[in-house]
Formats: sequence, C-alpha cells, structure tokens
Amino acid sequence: MPDKSSKIQDPGVGASYQHKTKRIINPDGSFNVKRVGTLNIINDAYHWLITIPWAPFIAVVTSVILATNFVYALVYLIIGVEHISGVQPSGYLMDDFISALFFSVQTFTTVGYGAMAPIGNLTSLIASLEAFNGLLLSAFSTGILYGRFSRPISKIKFSQTALLTPYKNTKYDSIQFRVVNKRANTLLNIRASVYLSINAKSQQPGEFRLKRDFYDLSLERSSIMFLPLTWTIVHIIDENSPLYGINLKELVDRQTEMLITLNGFDETFGQDTYTYFSYFASEFEENKKFIRNFTVDNNGDIILNVDDVHMTEDL
Amino acid sequence: MPDKSSKIQDPGVGASYQHKTKRIINPDGSFNVKRVGTLNIINDAYHWLITIPWAPFIAVVTSVILATNFVYALVYLIIGVEHISGVQPSGYLMDDFISALFFSVQTFTTVGYGAMAPIGNLTSLIASLEAFNGLLLSAFSTGILYGRFSRPISKIKFSQTALLTPYKNTKYDSIQFRVVNKRANTLLNIRASVYLSINAKSQQPGEFRLKRDFYDLSLERSSIMFLPLTWTIVHIIDENSPLYGINLKELVDRQTEMLITLNGFDETFGQDTYTYFSYFASEFEENKKFIRNFTVDNNGDIILNVDDVHMTEDL
Amino acid sequence: MPDKSSKIQDPGVGASYQHKTKRIINPDGSFNVKRVGTLNIINDAYHWLITIPWAPFIAVVTSVILATNFVYALVYLIIGVEHISGVQPSGYLMDDFISALFFSVQTFTTVGYGAMAPIGNLTSLIASLEAFNGLLLSAFSTGILYGRFSRPISKIKFSQTALLTPYKNTKYDSIQFRVVNKRANTLLNIRASVYLSINAKSQQPGEFRLKRDFYDLSLERSSIMFLPLTWTIVHIIDENSPLYGINLKELVDRQTEMLITLNGFDETFGQDTYTYFSYFASEFEENKKFIRNFTVDNNGDIILNVDDVHMTEDL
Amino acid sequence: MPDKSSKIQDPGVGASYQHKTKRIINPDGSFNVKRVGTLNIINDAYHWLITIPWAPFIAVVTSVILATNFVYALVYLIIGVEHISGVQPSGYLMDDFISALFFSVQTFTTVGYGAMAPIGNLTSLIASLEAFNGLLLSAFSTGILYGRFSRPISKIKFSQTALLTPYKNTKYDSIQFRVVNKRANTLLNIRASVYLSINAKSQQPGEFRLKRDFYDLSLERSSIMFLPLTWTIVHIIDENSPLYGINLKELVDRQTEMLITLNGFDETFGQDTYTYFSYFASEFEENKKFIRNFTVDNNGDIILNVDDVHMTEDL
Repeated sequence: MPDKSSKIQDPGVGASYQHKTKRIINPDGSFNVKRVGTLNIINDAYHWLITIPWAPFIAVVTSVILATNFVYALVYLIIGVEHISGVQPSGYLMDDFISALFFSVQTFTTVGYGAMAPIGNLTSLIASLEAFNGLLLSAFSTGILYGRFSRPISKIKFSQTALLTPYKNTKYDSIQFRVVNKRANTLLNIRASVYLSINAKSQQPGEFRLKRDFYDLSLERSSIMFLPLTWTIVHIIDENSPLYGINLKELVDRQTEMLITLNGFDETFGQDTYTYFSYFASEFEENKKFIRNFTVDNNGDIILNVDDVHMTEDL
Repeated sequence: MPDKSSKIQDPGVGASYQHKTKRIINPDGSFNVKRVGTLNIINDAYHWLITIPWAPFIAVVTSVILATNFVYALVYLIIGVEHISGVQPSGYLMDDFISALFFSVQTFTTVGYGAMAPIGNLTSLIASLEAFNGLLLSAFSTGILYGRFSRPISKIKFSQTALLTPYKNTKYDSIQFRVVNKRANTLLNIRASVYLSINAKSQQPGEFRLKRDFYDLSLERSSIMFLPLTWTIVHIIDENSPLYGINLKELVDRQTEMLITLNGFDETFGQDTYTYFSYFASEFEENKKFIRNFTVDNNGDIILNVDDVHMTEDL
Repeated sequence: MPDKSSKIQDPGVGASYQHKTKRIINPDGSFNVKRVGTLNIINDAYHWLITIPWAPFIAVVTSVILATNFVYALVYLIIGVEHISGVQPSGYLMDDFISALFFSVQTFTTVGYGAMAPIGNLTSLIASLEAFNGLLLSAFSTGILYGRFSRPISKIKFSQTALLTPYKNTKYDSIQFRVVNKRANTLLNIRASVYLSINAKSQQPGEFRLKRDFYDLSLERSSIMFLPLTWTIVHIIDENSPLYGINLKELVDRQTEMLITLNGFDETFGQDTYTYFSYFASEFEENKKFIRNFTVDNNGDIILNVDDVHMTEDL
Repeated sequence: MPDKSSKIQDPGVGASYQHKTKRIINPDGSFNVKRVGTLNIINDAYHWLITIPWAPFIAVVTSVILATNFVYALVYLIIGVEHISGVQPSGYLMDDFISALFFSVQTFTTVGYGAMAPIGNLTSLIASLEAFNGLLLSAFSTGILYGRFSRPISKIKFSQTALLTPYKNTKYDSIQFRVVNKRANTLLNIRASVYLSINAKSQQPGEFRLKRDFYDLSLERSSIMFLPLTWTIVHIIDENSPLYGINLKELVDRQTEMLITLNGFDETFGQDTYTYFSYFASEFEENKKFIRNFTVDNNGDIILNVDDVHMTEDL
C-alpha cells in the first residue's frame, strides 16, 4: 500500500514569486533558474570540462594545444631558429615561424625525430620545458577524457504526455506516465519520487495566487528491481490526493507541474544515476490510455521498441 | 521474522502476452528481451566499448589503429615519399606505401627514430596531426582499458537447481538455492530479493492464461554481512506463500520463474555490485537437500570448494 | 512530522575535558583536533597527494621531476659525457653537467631527438632505466591528477549566521540557517543532520561544567530532492527541544555549537558528497529573518545570486 | 533505544563442523577460510593486480617488462642486428643481444633516439609492433596504478582487547571496544554491526558441541556522524543479551568470537568503505575500563594520539 500523499515545505525550488514564472524544470531536464555568483571556470574547471558538450570540448582542447604550440614556436623564433639543428634561417619570418612550430610540435608530442633538435642551452631548456608540458597535458587530457566517458548518465525516455485516466476498474482517476531505458543496458533498483507543484487557490474563484503549494505524490509502486521493458508510474487520485476533484482546466490555470526524479543503479557504470523530469499541466492528456508497447515473436522472444513508450489509444 | 510475501504489480518485465513466451531471465543472466531503437553505437560508444567481450574489443582497437595508420600512410604516399627523409622512392607503389606506413607508425607511436623524418611543410603538418592523433588515441585507450578493468562485476555462482524441500523440522516445504562468490575476494552487506513470476490460473483446470502474476517472495533471511562461505537463501512455503499448495507439476505447467537479484559491496572495487539470475520451473528439484560443502582440515582451517555449491543429496 | 530531538552519546568528538576547549568544527570545515600517530606520508601517500592544495602539489611534483633528472644527469656525468653522442667534453664540470641534464630530460620525457644518444652499454643501460622511470612517473601523475580532479567535493555555502527567530505564526521560536550550492550543477537527494553540543548545566547558577551534552536536533524537513535554489533548514524550539527556554546569553555561556552534516548526490561526479559545518553560539543572531533571495525577471526566469544566501532583515 | 539482540541464521560463515576450528576472522582481517576453485589469475587478473602488496606487484610489472623486451631483443637478434642502423654485428652473440636489447628498450619506451633505427621491412614491422606494445602496456599500467591508489581502504585501528566491564552506573555489565581512524582524514556516517558466534551449549556441563550459534548484538549506539576522535562501541549485557549470565571462562570454553563490520564514507575517496575485524574470547579482558585518550592543550586544542586507542586502567 502506498504512503499517503502529503503537503510539504518548499522542496528547494521557491514557493512565492513577484509575478508569473515559467515551469520549474525545462523539457531538456534543466532547472529554470539562472544562478549568479557561482564558482567561475577557474575554480570549477573540472566540472565545466566534463559537462560541456563534445563540440565545444574538442574546440577548447584544440585551442589550448594550438595556443601552447604557438607560444613555444614564438619563443624559439625569438631565440633564433639557427638554434634548431636542421633549420636554415630563411630570412622570411613566416617560414622561420613555421619551422619553429614544427619543432615545437615534435617536442610537445615527444615524437622527437631528431631531424630538428635544439642547439645551445637556452633552446634546450625551453624544449625540455615543452616536453614536460606535453606530458602533463597528455596526463590531464587522459583524466578529463576518462571523466567525460565514465560519468554515469542514465538515458531515460519519458512518455511525451502524462495521462489523466481512470484507474483500472475503480471509481478513481489516476495520473500515469511511462518510462523506458534508451541505453542497451539494464537499470536495477529503480526508485521514483514525484512532487506536485500547484499554485495556491485564491479567494476569488478563477484567480490564483503567486504562491506554489508542494505535495509529495504517493505512487501505486515507487520502485522496481529491474527495467528491461517499460515502467508505468501511477498516482491514484483518491480522496487523499491533492489532485482529487480538480479538472484538467483548473490544473492548467493553476500552472500545475509534476516534478519527477528517478534513480537507479546503472550496471555499465556500477553507480547510481539520477534523472529528473517534469510534466507541465499543458502536457497532461485526458481520455487516453497507454497500450502494450512490446510484442512477442514466434520464438517467444519479447520485442520492445523504445520509441513506443509514447503509444496511447483513445479510451 | 521475514515480511509477508505480497502480490505486486508488473515489476518491469511485462505481464500479459499474445502467446507463450520464453523465460524472463536467461541462464547467462541476460533478459529475454530484444530492444529496438536504443541508442546507436555512436551515441552510446563508451557503454559499448566497455561491455563487449575482450576478443571483439581487441579486434576493434586493432582495426581502428591499423585503419588510422593506413589512412595516414596513404596521405604520405599521395604527397610523395620523397618528402620523408631516409626514403628513396622505389618506383613500386607497394614498396613506397610500406615505407610510408612505417613512417606513419613511428609518428603515431611518437617513437620518432628520425631515420625517417618529414621534409617540407605539408608532410610536417600531416605528421604533426598524426602525432597528436596518436596521443589522443593513447589517452582514450587508457581510459577505456581502465573502464573495462574497474567495472565492478560480481561473479556469483548459483546452485544449478533450486530445491523444493521440507523446511527443517516444520510441516512446511521451502524453496532453497545456494550461492557462492567465485572471486577470491569478500563481498559485504549482501542483500537478496526474489520475485516469483507465475502464469495466472485459468477457469478451466489444466489450462493457464497468458498473463503472469508477480509476487515478492519473503525470505527467511534477506541479507548477510559477509560471504566467505556459501549462503543458502530460503523461502518458506507457509500459508502466506503464493506457492502454498502448488505441486511441482503445476509450477512447470504455469511456467513459474523465480527472479533473483543479489547486491553487495565488493571490497576489491569499493562499490556496490548487482547480480541477477533466475530459476525456471524446469530447474526446480524435489526430494533433495543441500549438504555441507566445506571441510575442516587438521589445522582447524575451513576448506571450501566453490564448485561444491551444487552439492545435494537425496532426502 | 519531524522525529523528536533526543539526547545522544558522544557522537565521536569527545564529551569531557580538563579545561575549556575551542569550538569543535572550525569555520573552514576542519575539526579542531590535532591527531598524533596517524599514518605517515609514505603509508598514506595517495591521500596526501590528492588532498594537499594545488600550489604545494605542483611544487612537490616539480621537485620530484627535477630531483630525478638531476640524479640521472649526475650519473651520466660520472660515467663521462663522452658516452653521449653529440656531446664534446668541455673540460668544465658545469657545462658537462648541463649537457648531461638535457640528455637526461630528452630520455625521461621519451622525446629522444637523437642528436644526443647513449654510447656504450653502461650509458645505454642507465638511459633505458630512465626512460622506464619517465613512463612510470607519467602513469603515476596521470592517476594522481585524475584522482585530484574527480574527488567529489561539494561546495555548499552556509549563511553567515544561524537565526533564532519565531517560527511562522506559532508561539514557538526556531533556529534556522540557509544553504546554497556554489557550483553550477544540481545536487540531488540532499539530507541534513544537525547535532547540538552544549555544556552541561552546573549546580551553581552561572557556572557550567567542562562536560558537553549532545542532542540530535529534529528538523522541520530533513531532506529535499534537489537544490536549484536555497534551502532553509529549520529546527523548531518546541517543548521537546533541548533549546527550549534557553536564551541567547545562556547559549553563549554554555559554549553551544550546532554541528551540521549535509550529504547529497552530485550529478557531476555521479557520487554522494558530504559537507560538514558548525555554528558556534557567537554566530547565532536574534531578531532577524531570512528574506527571499531570488527574483523573477520579465521573462518569468528565476534569478538567484548565491551570495545572497546571507540576506536577512530585521523582524 | 537499541534494537533487541536476536538469534540469527548462519551469517555466511558456517555453523556446524566435524571438529574444532580456529577463529573465523584472523587478526589481520582475513577470513579463516581456504577457498578452492575460485577464478584463476587469468580470469580475475585485475582483482589480483590491485590487491597484491606493492613488493610483488613491482616484481610482476618489472618481470613482464623485462621478459617482453628480452623476447623482442631475441627476435631482432634472429633477424640479424645488421638490420638495426648504428649496430655493427660484433661476432659475439652476447654483445649483439645487448645491442638488440637496447634497441628494443628505445622502441618500447618510444624514446627512439634514432642512433639505432630499423632497416628493412621485417625489422621495421617488429619495431612497429613493439612500439604499440609499449603504448598498450603504458596505458594498462596507468590504469592498474590508479586502481591500486584509488581503492578506498579505510584504516581503522581497533583496541587490542574488548572489555567486559560494568555499564555506567547500572547493574549491568557491558562489552566494549574502541576504534580510531589511522588516516589523517575524516570518516563520516560510520555504522557498526556486531555478530556473536558462540558454540552451542551441550547437555553435559563443561562440554560444548561443534555447532555455532549466531546472534546479532544490539549496540548502545550503532552509528555516528563523524569520527575525528575515537568511538567506543558498547553492547549492554542486559536480560535480552545472549551473553547474559555467562562468565569469561565459559566464553573462552565456548570459543566465543565477536565479528564486527564498520562502514563509513571516506572523504578522501568519496566512497563507502568497509572494515571487518573480530575479537576472539582470548582477547576479552575483565576489570578494566577505557580511559580518555585525548588531552586539551593550553590553546584549547584537542590532542589525540591514535595509538592510545588501547589505553585502559584497572577498575
């Protein structure tokens, strides 16, 4: 038997506002909060480097490597390319810089063919520093790359809409949504929490105050042991539910939002993962029900198309 | 005292089917579900690279390295091998390609003897790219290798059969199976969950519907602190058990399956690990009991053969 | 409804003293305990290397690398620099040492231009060792660097003071403090525990014994699911509270300290993190309340300045 | 209030024996069980490489590297050292082998000075393989080294003896032991579990059967939030205790053993750690009590000597 739904304090997202706000959690899973004064990139570099998308990440890494090699090349140029064996000063600055740059790269990557090699103490010293610099950046990149790959991110797909639909053969309605694992692996020990955010009722009918009430919604079943297929998460709108007696229009008017966290053990990463998501009132749907989204083939194998998590039919 | 067994909703494996299905969890621990539309290899590369077996993994890595070096060799060949010092164009394409390939390898691995070295800007530029490419792949491989090694996988051996056998000196039967840790390390804080999947009873005796019922089976003891020897997991078939009054033939007819998850803390990896397994009705056995599978030698040392986890004797 | 506050045994910080002590947890989050006889650096090297600040860490690594290269250079010098191709013994010890040092660096970093190369078995042997040594240190540094970066450290900012302030519209006082996440990421499933340390009351009024009593303070809400904004943690000083009927002056006299641990799941690191903090009686403040520290802009976006976690106003 | 102690099933360590056994957990924390048929080194290599002590680990790594280089050197020798530039065949097998070995090392480490370089396709091919081989081993070693360092091992020191001593001002005895963290870091959220193993009482007074009974001992306090000082773990021997009315001699006769697991969050590694330990009856002591093992200096700083965890005094 599920726990009773209960009214709760602000769960960390803010309860009263000067004027109308947007939804709390955006469809992409980010919170609709702009935070100022957080740690800057220097103090939070690792976080930044492992969370930015791949395209800017590659751009940053390439830029750092290029800039480093340009600076070293410039230093070799200033010392004079005649201090690099195998290089004849050409009299043209650009040509000399290019030679210095190739020497820099051969040093930085520690490929060190030797066709170019440092002559004299100063060039040798700079080249020594650059070789260490290259090793360090290599160590650093290895760590960051591993950090990016091994971040345990679950990829849960939620049904596009949450359904307001009768609960089995009872007199109650329920609100239901369905999830599926987009990865090819198995999630274990998956738990769901659902909060409801709903604007408080005002004294004047039809008007609603700029104050949110929060409820912890009870679930028919709040955890499952594994998720090879899909999981339909159900809140029964019985007399104990904060949604009891509220129609869809009022839910929309009161800017209702259902905030969801799912966490489970990801067998690929060997770690717990969290996903958060929300359904805004405009994503609630009536007069539909979820239909079975898997088939059994002639061998007795179950076939599941993960995109069919959305599949509903009219009641 | 164990919790009471209870009927539960579909625990994420599907409850009703068009026609007869196979078992839910295969003997190798995989789920009997074919999932379509999951993330492709590009989007889920890390997962794929750390979960494929070693043989294909090595084949993939070798292929990528070979292909990369062939492509670079081809580029050097197109530019002309006369731009690699120490190489005399032979007039034979194959010989020149082989020379270019060795130069490519010496650059990619950053071994850079220097007997071959780039001449001219274009070859130097390509060689620079290749050296960075080699470093990157090296960083990448280090991370993937570590990811493969450090994935916390517990290796639990389950007894070949689950026994339907009288419980101690009571009037009740029980269903029992036994587990042992195949690794040489110690598992801590091990917890077991057992679900029962059994086809619903039809109105016509002898026929069963294509609908599964699920139960959370109560266990005599559902967790232990450490597992140096073996652990016999016991469900007592008392009046509260969904198995009460059902004989082995009916269990087979109703395609009964016992779904098991075990999780515990692996002291080698410092992380929690999960194992799942199932016994299908055809793997239930009657009139047997597990026997002690360890001996005490003359020094008072306990000797355990992990393969003896299966050891049973007739009642 | 929160659990009742309860008196507890010494929670691991010491209860009776010979004379007056300082606070238990310093403002920087360290414990006010000097521990003698802990593992030395050799036995606890990894811990030491990943927890020292960056400046000494870089100094240590640089010193180790420099020292290693100096030692190898010295060995080459003793063998004789004439055993390094491309080096002419200069007759000056310093010049020869510098040549040996550059050869050492080119070997250690595996850049190996080849303009300098070992001649003879002894120099070749030492150079072989040094190259392996370089690879080893590189592997080691990669691991340590990754260990430093990937340590999951949450950066929670606590309000400067804890407020002794009336609880909503009740007759009770409460003690409140507020927290915010300084990182740009989201913390999930955050839980708070608050212990109270207060010197025992003596028989003589106005005097207090050198013995601390500890209480587990009940909280209005001890966990939240996510923390995009701020979280105000509240202990209600009702009849069950150990703080009931004690004024601020007495709290100061009895060296009251509120010990706090916060833990939550950090989505960047994919791991649980812990923060501990304390408010000493001198950091309790009366006749203030926390005020809303976020604004809503015209787009309906919520703007939060993390530094405003301290914002209070007079009652 | 602590839970009641309760008799439990075999907690995974075996209950009945053919003849007398040794203690269950050895003083070094290992279980007194010899396991046969566990995974061999090939199948459990990572576990083996990260858990063997440093001395054999270094010996293994050195041997693998040496053996690899010897094999490659042998291959170069068989092909003929005249295919290595800079090497003149000496006519002496040993000298040629040594030259081949140095070439091998310069290739394997990718130092590649170039004073020696491969001549001809076969030698170039072998050298290419060796360079990749070197990179692979380097990647591998980096991962293993990191795995060894980052394994979260808590270093908890237990008092040498467990004390059978009166509990405060009550009429009850208690059994007490004390723990301290040997590392310089802080453990958080530490939980203790204590099992009692005691041979069953036989019908003949003075004789005891070869059957162990197990009990889950209730603790006065089973968890603490942090452990900057020491923690005294106490089981009160009241009427509910399985130890009630048993004197020390009988405990020894019945081969009593107290099995302990401690787990907590290690702030260095950011992970949970487990320690297990046991007190055998011969390590129980009467008529003693633990005394305060820290002092407060004139600055009000608390000084703790971790070795003083053993400090007791006569009652």
